[in-house]
Amino acid sequence: MEAYLDNSATTRCFDEVTDLMVRVMKEDFGNPSSLHTKGMEAERYLRAAKAYFAENLKVREKEIYFTSGGTESNNLAIIGAAMANQRAGKHLITSRIEHPSVENPMQYLEGQGYALTCLPVDEKGVVSLAALKEAVTEETILVSVMYVNNEIGSVQPIDEMARIIHEKNPRTLFHVDAVQAYGKYQIFPKKEGIDLMSISGHKIHGPKGSGVLYVSEKVKIRPILFGGEQQKGLRSGTENVPGIAGIAEAAKLCYQDLDEKVERLYVLKERFAEGIRKLPDVQINGMPVREGAPHIVSVSFAGVKSEVLLHALEEKGIYVSAGSACSSNKPSVSRTLQAIGMKKELLGSTLRFSFSFETREEEIDACIQGLEELLLVLRRYVRR
Amino acid sequence: MEAYLDNSATTRCFDEVTDLMVRVMKEDFGNPSSLHTKGMEAERYLRAAKAYFAENLKVREKEIYFTSGGTESNNLAIIGAAMANQRAGKHLITSRIEHPSVENPMQYLEGQGYALTCLPVDEKGVVSLAALKEAVTEETILVSVMYVNNEIGSVQPIDEMARIIHEKNPRTLFHVDAVQAYGKYQIFPKKEGIDLMSISGHKIHGPKGSGVLYVSEKVKIRPILFGGEQQKGLRSGTENVPGIAGIAEAAKLCYQDLDEKVERLYVLKERFAEGIRKLPDVQINGMPVREGAPHIVSVSFAGVKSEVLLHALEEKGIYVSAGSACSSNKPSVSRTLQAIGMKKELLGSTLRFSFSFETREEEIDACIQGLEELLLVLRRYVRR
Repeated sequence: MEAYLDNSATTRCFDEVTDLMVRVMKEDFGNPSSLHTKGMEAERYLRAAKAYFAENLKVREKEIYFTSGGTESNNLAIIGAAMANQRAGKHLITSRIEHPSVENPMQYLEGQGYALTCLPVDEKGVVSLAALKEAVTEETILVSVMYVNNEIGSVQPIDEMARIIHEKNPRTLFHVDAVQAYGKYQIFPKKEGIDLMSISGHKIHGPKGSGVLYVSEKVKIRPILFGGEQQKGLRSGTENVPGIAGIAEAAKLCYQDLDEKVERLYVLKERFAEGIRKLPDVQINGMPVREGAPHIVSVSFAGVKSEVLLHALEEKGIYVSAGSACSSNKPSVSRTLQAIGMKKELLGSTLRFSFSFETREEEIDACIQGLEELLLVLRRYVRR
Repeated sequence: MEAYLDNSATTRCFDEVTDLMVRVMKEDFGNPSSLHTKGMEAERYLRAAKAYFAENLKVREKEIYFTSGGTESNNLAIIGAAMANQRAGKHLITSRIEHPSVENPMQYLEGQGYALTCLPVDEKGVVSLAALKEAVTEETILVSVMYVNNEIGSVQPIDEMARIIHEKNPRTLFHVDAVQAYGKYQIFPKKEGIDLMSISGHKIHGPKGSGVLYVSEKVKIRPILFGGEQQKGLRSGTENVPGIAGIAEAAKLCYQDLDEKVERLYVLKERFAEGIRKLPDVQINGMPVREGAPHIVSVSFAGVKSEVLLHALEEKGIYVSAGSACSSNKPSVSRTLQAIGMKKELLGSTLRFSFSFETREEEIDACIQGLEELLLVLRRYVRR
């Protein structure tokens, strides 16, 4: 039996998504910029997708932009907003547990003369609100924090953060990388005080190469790609119509009966956590099961190398991740795990298990059973 | 009968391309950065695609990068190379008939303090080699010229340009936007002296949202998107595996029996040109039929507004373009048509007809017949 428990790396496309994309690619293949019917047919998918996200996020259609994925959304939000607002100040804030597609644009901007503050997190992976309050100044133009951490599933108190930021400086923009949260949480940017928000298609059973950026109409932002001025000039390039139709369809399916599906995920997560707790010398990292995100569990296995365990599980058809899959085959020490103060000897002994709405109980059980067997074998040969 | 003659705006995906993409999305959906089998299965598609393009272009696999499309490829080539090489000089050269995704990054760089030279073209749309020779200096770091113009199908003498550029300054990089040429011409960048070259998927019956950038291993270039360091750090973001598999499959199919297919296109183009020449008060713009690209014909219809004719053709099921479709619904006066010295009164009376390997004779004939009928009717009501 196969158990795919690496859904935070990527998810399988829903069948409805691929079906729709095939229709777009084969039949409604026009260029939305074309003035004739074929163009208008294609544009209809863009408008429908925009309307869906606007409704789902309770924002305006003109605040929705489509990108090539989470990385581009984060880069556009951060570099685009920093560049457009540099006259108001050159101070940026982020946290120590961000995804590289936030961390690296921030470092790029630091190299361009911006000042950067990196907020610490507690042992659960929650950003220090006191540090945030202290960090925001008159010069701060942008704060970027992720909604759900991709490695340990910790959830940030986004609305409280927004309140703190905007109380200290009403002009400071708040960008939220919601790549791991969208599709699991009902998020209303305007209510929560979010000015910019990134979404990725392939994390929610949509296509790779698709993403959304919400940009509040109040935000000044400049493009990072220049060309045919599509999407009101903020994102040039022929729109990826099948991808955009696909990400909207995936989102729609995720948000159908969301509460029930998320409750089911928590039940799975609890089942998994219970199984894990019965194993010797293991620890679950981050927040308590019901406080953290419903689909991510980080576990440290004392005395076992994560890559060895990962490949041993793989031989049993169980697919998991060492840290995150987002750093291109380069397993390095996780900044997130360091930031939560994990003991040095556990840093290389930690795996991420991530579920989706398609995950079945049998997969959880197979994984727990596999871990039980493997830990016995692997630890036998390891000096403790 | 429908006649889709707007293939330079976008093409229908080949069935083999959509079939392959569905398989990737449904079965081999892993994240190429994942360390387990699912990741490796996905990575195999990337490697196969890279190997195909390397073989097809006679370059090395490590010189192939995947992007979200032609616009991103052009932006990455131009901004990435200009930023990485600014110490060697800050002079850039391009032509007056470039696509907005070249023109606008160039203007952005001009705003950042680079000097920009825009080369004139002759009445056929060919860049002046004398002007190029004069323009290249010690300070010139990058020249960007398109292989085939998207509006009038003129073809540049790329290898001659490369020779002139590199003779005057061996360090000057030569970027070629081959979006309209790739799939119709056998292009060998190393032989032709091209240092960077852009390709788009959806112009060659591949998926929208996919592109390739060839970067000679000798070229210093920096990324424009920062993140998980995929693709050796030059293009972060989870690779769009189905899109990449799709663009490679599309290219492969285009290059099968290329010569025969291109000859067939020229025969179609001749048939179309003959039909056009029988119409009163029309002119074909750009190069002679066999000298220009095999799939693009620009025609001016004296006394008729291009948008009126476009929509009248549309009612007959014939889809064509006014200028290019690349400028996001904003019909404005074409820089290309101005640059070739078109009479003012014809600028707004010009249509582009563009064919593909799927175009049939009947479509050509239907279009000519439609034009014949419509010109009679439309011109009756127009003051000349």
